[in-house]
Amino acid sequence: MPSEHRIEQDFLGHKQIPAEAYWGVHTARAVENFPISGTPVSAMPELIRAFGFVKKATAKANLELGVLESKRAFAIMSACEKLIDGQYHEQFVVDVIQGGAGTSTNMNANEVIANLALERLGFEKGRYDVLHPNDHVNASQSTNDVYPTAVRLALWFGIDRLLDAMAILRAGFEAKAEEFKDVLKIGRTQLQDAVPMTLGQEFSTYAVMIGEDEQRLREARALIQEINLGATAIGTGINAPHGYAELACRHLAEVSGVPVIKSPNLVEATQDTGAFVQLSGVLKRVATKLSKTCNDLRLLSSGPQAGFGDIKLPPRQAGSSIMPGKVNPVIPEVMNQVAFEVIGNDMTVTMASEAGQLQLNAFEPIMGWSLHKSILHLANACLTLQAHCVSGIEANHELLARRVRESVTLVTALNPIIGYEKAALIAKTAIASGAPIVDVAHTLGIMTREQMQALLVPEKLTQPLRLEAIGGKAA
Amino acid sequence: MPSEHRIEQDFLGHKQIPAEAYWGVHTARAVENFPISGTPVSAMPELIRAFGFVKKATAKANLELGVLESKRAFAIMSACEKLIDGQYHEQFVVDVIQGGAGTSTNMNANEVIANLALERLGFEKGRYDVLHPNDHVNASQSTNDVYPTAVRLALWFGIDRLLDAMAILRAGFEAKAEEFKDVLKIGRTQLQDAVPMTLGQEFSTYAVMIGEDEQRLREARALIQEINLGATAIGTGINAPHGYAELACRHLAEVSGVPVIKSPNLVEATQDTGAFVQLSGVLKRVATKLSKTCNDLRLLSSGPQAGFGDIKLPPRQAGSSIMPGKVNPVIPEVMNQVAFEVIGNDMTVTMASEAGQLQLNAFEPIMGWSLHKSILHLANACLTLQAHCVSGIEANHELLARRVRESVTLVTALNPIIGYEKAALIAKTAIASGAPIVDVAHTLGIMTREQMQALLVPEKLTQPLRLEAIGGKAA
Amino acid sequence: MPSEHRIEQDFLGHKQIPAEAYWGVHTARAVENFPISGTPVSAMPELIRAFGFVKKATAKANLELGVLESKRAFAIMSACEKLIDGQYHEQFVVDVIQGGAGTSTNMNANEVIANLALERLGFEKGRYDVLHPNDHVNASQSTNDVYPTAVRLALWFGIDRLLDAMAILRAGFEAKAEEFKDVLKIGRTQLQDAVPMTLGQEFSTYAVMIGEDEQRLREARALIQEINLGATAIGTGINAPHGYAELACRHLAEVSGVPVIKSPNLVEATQDTGAFVQLSGVLKRVATKLSKTCNDLRLLSSGPQAGFGDIKLPPRQAGSSIMPGKVNPVIPEVMNQVAFEVIGNDMTVTMASEAGQLQLNAFEPIMGWSLHKSILHLANACLTLQAHCVSGIEANHELLARRVRESVTLVTALNPIIGYEKAALIAKTAIASGAPIVDVAHTLGIMTREQMQALLVPEKLTQPLRLEAIGGKAA
Amino acid sequence: MPSEHRIEQDFLGHKQIPAEAYWGVHTARAVENFPISGTPVSAMPELIRAFGFVKKATAKANLELGVLESKRAFAIMSACEKLIDGQYHEQFVVDVIQGGAGTSTNMNANEVIANLALERLGFEKGRYDVLHPNDHVNASQSTNDVYPTAVRLALWFGIDRLLDAMAILRAGFEAKAEEFKDVLKIGRTQLQDAVPMTLGQEFSTYAVMIGEDEQRLREARALIQEINLGATAIGTGINAPHGYAELACRHLAEVSGVPVIKSPNLVEATQDTGAFVQLSGVLKRVATKLSKTCNDLRLLSSGPQAGFGDIKLPPRQAGSSIMPGKVNPVIPEVMNQVAFEVIGNDMTVTMASEAGQLQLNAFEPIMGWSLHKSILHLANACLTLQAHCVSGIEANHELLARRVRESVTLVTALNPIIGYEKAALIAKTAIASGAPIVDVAHTLGIMTREQMQALLVPEKLTQPLRLEAIGGKAA
Repeated sequence: MPSEHRIEQDFLGHKQIPAEAYWGVHTARAVENFPISGTPVSAMPELIRAFGFVKKATAKANLELGVLESKRAFAIMSACEKLIDGQYHEQFVVDVIQGGAGTSTNMNANEVIANLALERLGFEKGRYDVLHPNDHVNASQSTNDVYPTAVRLALWFGIDRLLDAMAILRAGFEAKAEEFKDVLKIGRTQLQDAVPMTLGQEFSTYAVMIGEDEQRLREARALIQEINLGATAIGTGINAPHGYAELACRHLAEVSGVPVIKSPNLVEATQDTGAFVQLSGVLKRVATKLSKTCNDLRLLSSGPQAGFGDIKLPPRQAGSSIMPGKVNPVIPEVMNQVAFEVIGNDMTVTMASEAGQLQLNAFEPIMGWSLHKSILHLANACLTLQAHCVSGIEANHELLARRVRESVTLVTALNPIIGYEKAALIAKTAIASGAPIVDVAHTLGIMTREQMQALLVPEKLTQPLRLEAIGGKAA
Repeated sequence: MPSEHRIEQDFLGHKQIPAEAYWGVHTARAVENFPISGTPVSAMPELIRAFGFVKKATAKANLELGVLESKRAFAIMSACEKLIDGQYHEQFVVDVIQGGAGTSTNMNANEVIANLALERLGFEKGRYDVLHPNDHVNASQSTNDVYPTAVRLALWFGIDRLLDAMAILRAGFEAKAEEFKDVLKIGRTQLQDAVPMTLGQEFSTYAVMIGEDEQRLREARALIQEINLGATAIGTGINAPHGYAELACRHLAEVSGVPVIKSPNLVEATQDTGAFVQLSGVLKRVATKLSKTCNDLRLLSSGPQAGFGDIKLPPRQAGSSIMPGKVNPVIPEVMNQVAFEVIGNDMTVTMASEAGQLQLNAFEPIMGWSLHKSILHLANACLTLQAHCVSGIEANHELLARRVRESVTLVTALNPIIGYEKAALIAKTAIASGAPIVDVAHTLGIMTREQMQALLVPEKLTQPLRLEAIGGKAA
Repeated sequence: MPSEHRIEQDFLGHKQIPAEAYWGVHTARAVENFPISGTPVSAMPELIRAFGFVKKATAKANLELGVLESKRAFAIMSACEKLIDGQYHEQFVVDVIQGGAGTSTNMNANEVIANLALERLGFEKGRYDVLHPNDHVNASQSTNDVYPTAVRLALWFGIDRLLDAMAILRAGFEAKAEEFKDVLKIGRTQLQDAVPMTLGQEFSTYAVMIGEDEQRLREARALIQEINLGATAIGTGINAPHGYAELACRHLAEVSGVPVIKSPNLVEATQDTGAFVQLSGVLKRVATKLSKTCNDLRLLSSGPQAGFGDIKLPPRQAGSSIMPGKVNPVIPEVMNQVAFEVIGNDMTVTMASEAGQLQLNAFEPIMGWSLHKSILHLANACLTLQAHCVSGIEANHELLARRVRESVTLVTALNPIIGYEKAALIAKTAIASGAPIVDVAHTLGIMTREQMQALLVPEKLTQPLRLEAIGGKAA
Repeated sequence: MPSEHRIEQDFLGHKQIPAEAYWGVHTARAVENFPISGTPVSAMPELIRAFGFVKKATAKANLELGVLESKRAFAIMSACEKLIDGQYHEQFVVDVIQGGAGTSTNMNANEVIANLALERLGFEKGRYDVLHPNDHVNASQSTNDVYPTAVRLALWFGIDRLLDAMAILRAGFEAKAEEFKDVLKIGRTQLQDAVPMTLGQEFSTYAVMIGEDEQRLREARALIQEINLGATAIGTGINAPHGYAELACRHLAEVSGVPVIKSPNLVEATQDTGAFVQLSGVLKRVATKLSKTCNDLRLLSSGPQAGFGDIKLPPRQAGSSIMPGKVNPVIPEVMNQVAFEVIGNDMTVTMASEAGQLQLNAFEPIMGWSLHKSILHLANACLTLQAHCVSGIEANHELLARRVRESVTLVTALNPIIGYEKAALIAKTAIASGAPIVDVAHTLGIMTREQMQALLVPEKLTQPLRLEAIGGKAA
């Protein structure tokens, strides 16, 4: 009967490894050392695919430079293909929160790839004398260059998906802006009634904000294109052959389709996590504005009787276990919470970045994990916001129209004719008495009803002034 | 052939529910609405157990007050027992990040309990005409009182475990403080050599800090004891019978073993999330100090040749995929990262709390989830820190002793005799020349070698001064 | 003609000091080194008074222990009295943001006190051979014990003022709660109409929240009572005589009136800034809840025509430079901004605390400055909120009453009679048709108008249910 | 005898204004309403200058469009010149922390400019019938467009100064990188000895990081170029004549020299504070990296006897009031604290941005003030870091050289020859025994001393490998 374990060793001693495991002794030690979150690295499939690309590209470079002979190189590359295809991801068992600057994830990858390669070569798992996780899979590499490179690649994939989700949401707001382009309403500043605008103008702002954020996100993505592959341990390139860095980087761009570029100063690039902080800061910006947008949607749909009531959100589920018929803005609320999480994650990333010391930042795992969550949750929240909320928003036409007709703040348009002080007098009197401003202006002897009505055409008040309309003379 | 689905309905319409599911239509809608993190509520077993306790206690109160007749009440209570025992947790499928102020989690619980109760009563799942998730399981309740109550109970269970873990780590540091109590070393301020102390004094500080934090955590736990059960929708107790709040609360204390107390102002208690902010602030404090402690451990063990080298941490895994024999402080590093996460979570909790509006805070789900993670990860990190690091720390006796002998900063002890300025002159000269301070003092004619040696006994310098030893005269 | 400068020296060399300055060479160097914010330490008068108390208490202890002879001791104590009385504060010229763990502020104090004492003794400024800033004013002390002690004392004074301001604001909300105790309104959850309550219940929550926060603040203040005076450089008490720590601490409590207590572990106390983090966390909690309260005030007063309009805030200034008559909630808005600042300050304090290393935290100056601002601004904002906003709030009686009459959400009260599903049907139909729920229930044949009207008495719906009123039978 | 007061009024009533004050009734009310920080807007001279530019440009546009007749326009422009020249800044007395979305600062500017203009026209202060703060100085404007525009201009000026300071600091690090380019040392990862590098490589990273951050800052500055001048109240341009927005924007670019551009969607631009969040995020990035750099400087200079001791920082002041001769890294420490403050400020900006509602963000004042402090303090800290620290750093040549010679981690270079496992064996044995690795390798029979010495030339280990040097055969 075959043993259910194999024995592996490192410089700390021997260890039993389950016979079916593709991971080995280094992974086993890491699993013991980091029983923190219970969430394994396999929760980040983009990262495992990224490792597949990186290890494939480096094997190719090593083959071409004569560091690896072809049999081993091809076996390694074939194993990498499996990871890229989404296979064997369950073999990545190290906790996402781990010490050691990513070494455990890198060794987990090295071991899985080595054993897959050994299998392909017809050897049993653990025959590292034939093909070694460090000497062959990790040849010309250090965790300190491959791990940050893989993390960047994984973030790139995630950002792509987020950009798609944002574009879908933006299109949703654009469609609503078009739909509502003639719906007049009273704008509000500081939650107090301000001057007329269209509901379309209001919704267009949400689209514009997202569009600008897509642009910022693309810029931040461009910063994570820069990789330190070839830096090895501290950026000096120790143990990597001359020419390797350029070659590995070029291969990585080819196999992954991501336009990575080699950093000009590899020592700096190896310790610098500024691009993560920048990216996280941009995600925080995105979150902040989506949260503001959702706050607005919740405000505008407040009611149905005792609120703003400008719009109706589509009902998505019973809002209350006790209040029958209550419908709550649950989809915007989930976006708010994702935003709060993203802002918290940014703090985590910032602290981890600041804590880096000398030639390396040991805290990249928590940065990678935090950014992964921020990107994934934002993308998902954008998609559900569009599909389950924005797409079904309706305007309360009648209420909006009535409010515009009755609005006291239309007096603003009188400033150029009668001056701020007289206009303020009309407003104050109208609010106190409840009388229409047209009547008040008449009673106070400031303007006739006819003059007022000619001026106060709400449609004209949603755009700059035609001076000729008011006589055009200088104040 | 039996159908694989049953049909359920709510006021939005009908929906197919998998026949084997204990959850129902409200849960199904929530799953559709919140495809955010992919992590279901079942990731928080304490929360599900807490719902079991809450629904059991309320059923009991409803029975006694005549709101539920006994057959239904006992069926509900029996179903709750199953959740308390850890069964059917996989039925809690709603995403941990969800809109709706926890309504979806509460309805998930109501539906699972209703169907378990129906099963016990001999009915098929979905026969809500017999026993209804809202009318019976949720009787006298609203999400707005049962959800915060359950979250608090779950946090209580988590804090208990964290307190245990902290006590274990504290004991570990205490043991090391005792072990190192006679090991002299040079203390450091601002990373510059300061005056002598013992390594035991240094390690005792870590124990004391944890002990104080345990006390702070107990105080914060006491604040989450206060619950708003009986508040129903907004704290006015609408639909709950007179006397119910007190009764349900008393039953909850009994069945759960947690000394919950009814809040004196239920309207306030229903909207106030201050206790979560306070708890999160204390967890941040705990994290901050554990991070500082781990920073110290990493500094003190830096080397082996070009660092501080005061202590050696036990090797836990190969530190590098490229540098053979390198051992890194991976266990303290994971604690640092947990701390950064906890500090980020605190920001999330703070923003979610600030965003509460009027009679309810809709963002409790992200608060509960953030606090859950902070507590769980801190507890796990404390346990691994003690088991895999602190317990195996060794002092570098020889190096520490040599440094004390040669230390220039011992001149501090001369202040009371020769004054600050002359002592500074000795120090400056000694550092510049590399000569021992005894020789320098002699050469400068400030003190004789014998006077110096009598004064500079390091053991005496780790405690206050015996004035008689230096003549005792006033300066 | 007399020289306009005197020459002072330290171990870095000589330096010209303006003849009229009470500060000396160490202060002069610090001013050169830290040209950061332009705000001198004199911006924190409580801190300078605190230094006066600390240096007086230590001089007294030194006198009694024979470390200082009486002439010097009394001259020092007399100089301290001047600082306590608010004199010579302009001599504290070092920037509030400074390196060096507070050494520059301590030396600024030592020098000012030394020169004031010299003046009293009839000597010229700078005659440190007679009375020395380090050897006499700082005798038995280190920055590392006196600076944190003084910072704590200063915070205590500030917290006292904040507690007073919070109590004033709380009383203001309590008065409004009493005034509005019979004003019925519709409560809101998730910005959607919920069930009835009184405006008095709503305002009482603001009072209760502040009252609880006062309690939390008192608890946090109790933590900063614990001081490390006598610890000297690293907590071992080097150069302080036996018995000094207890004595100095007792004197400090007497002269300052603050019940300071000596920390049981001075090594721990010297490096631990946990009490600052805890205090900052509580200030964050206070800020979070005051911000939430002000968000509510702004929501409730939104309008005047297109908003919630439950209440009116007193107008305090013209709200707009363009919109005449516009009145904005400027006082709540300033509190919101103070809250955001306090939450930011908490992050600063947290990072500074985490960054402490080994036997000392070098970053206490930024902690002290951040906490000073948080406390001062919160106190001022509380006072202006009460005086200029809360005290003048009025209810919109008519609007509130009308909304309660017409509210659809009153159907909640029907649950115990007709069940959740039928009640939901009534609500849905009423919202869609705009018809009153009484009519809808009648039309649907669920209840008669008389049954409905007997049940739906809003005053009864703001409290728990009398079961007998609905027949009392179990569901 | 002339009165010492004049009387002004607004729609709330009359108010006495000191006769000599250039500000008026709106400013007076704001001073009463916001007694928060005690710091007046005059603490931000760039903001007042910016208001000068904005009001000058708008007056010019108003003149050309016939909104203002020439006498008034020129008087206003002349008054603006005075603010631009730094005069009358003390008239800006409103607190930097204020409610009202900047209206009070705008009205303070309108009033000061109106009264300066009246004075020039030969009228007494307060003669607003002749020239009115709202109708003339604020013509075609709203706070909601001029205030954000002025804040952006002020930030631009501040960023320019910060960029200069960063360039100076970068040049300082570049000079040191050149100076140290041949100084070999052992690099460190995770605070553990790693492989050789040069001190010049280490210092070059600090220069590169700053250079990259300058680039990021320029990009963020480009975002604040986009202004919403002409948007008036909510972005619809109400009361501003057609063509005004373009004209005013063009004039502003001319008079200020800042290449401002008109936002394409003024409704969006009026409510969007994303550019502030982005800028703040970049400042956080800058702070994070400068803090990391200063952490490194403090680590590298730790000692002088019991630390890393790679470098010496120039002594700047006595480090301790008790420990004679102690020199502390006070300049890096002040940068750390500025960084913590900037990171806290970013949280404040983020929360303020998220809290914006509908057509306006009312919380721009706290954003402007927070960003002002971050920029100013970073610039000052960069300048003092270069002048008082970096410029005087010296290498500990002898210690560094010795450590390289004796380093165990040189075994890394043997990987390509003997494999990771054998190299690890040598390392482990050498550390345990204290014997040189050359001897250990020999004793273990792995390599001869000659082979080792040929390979382990530290200078060669600071760069990629020449494969031919090791035989070049594939592994």
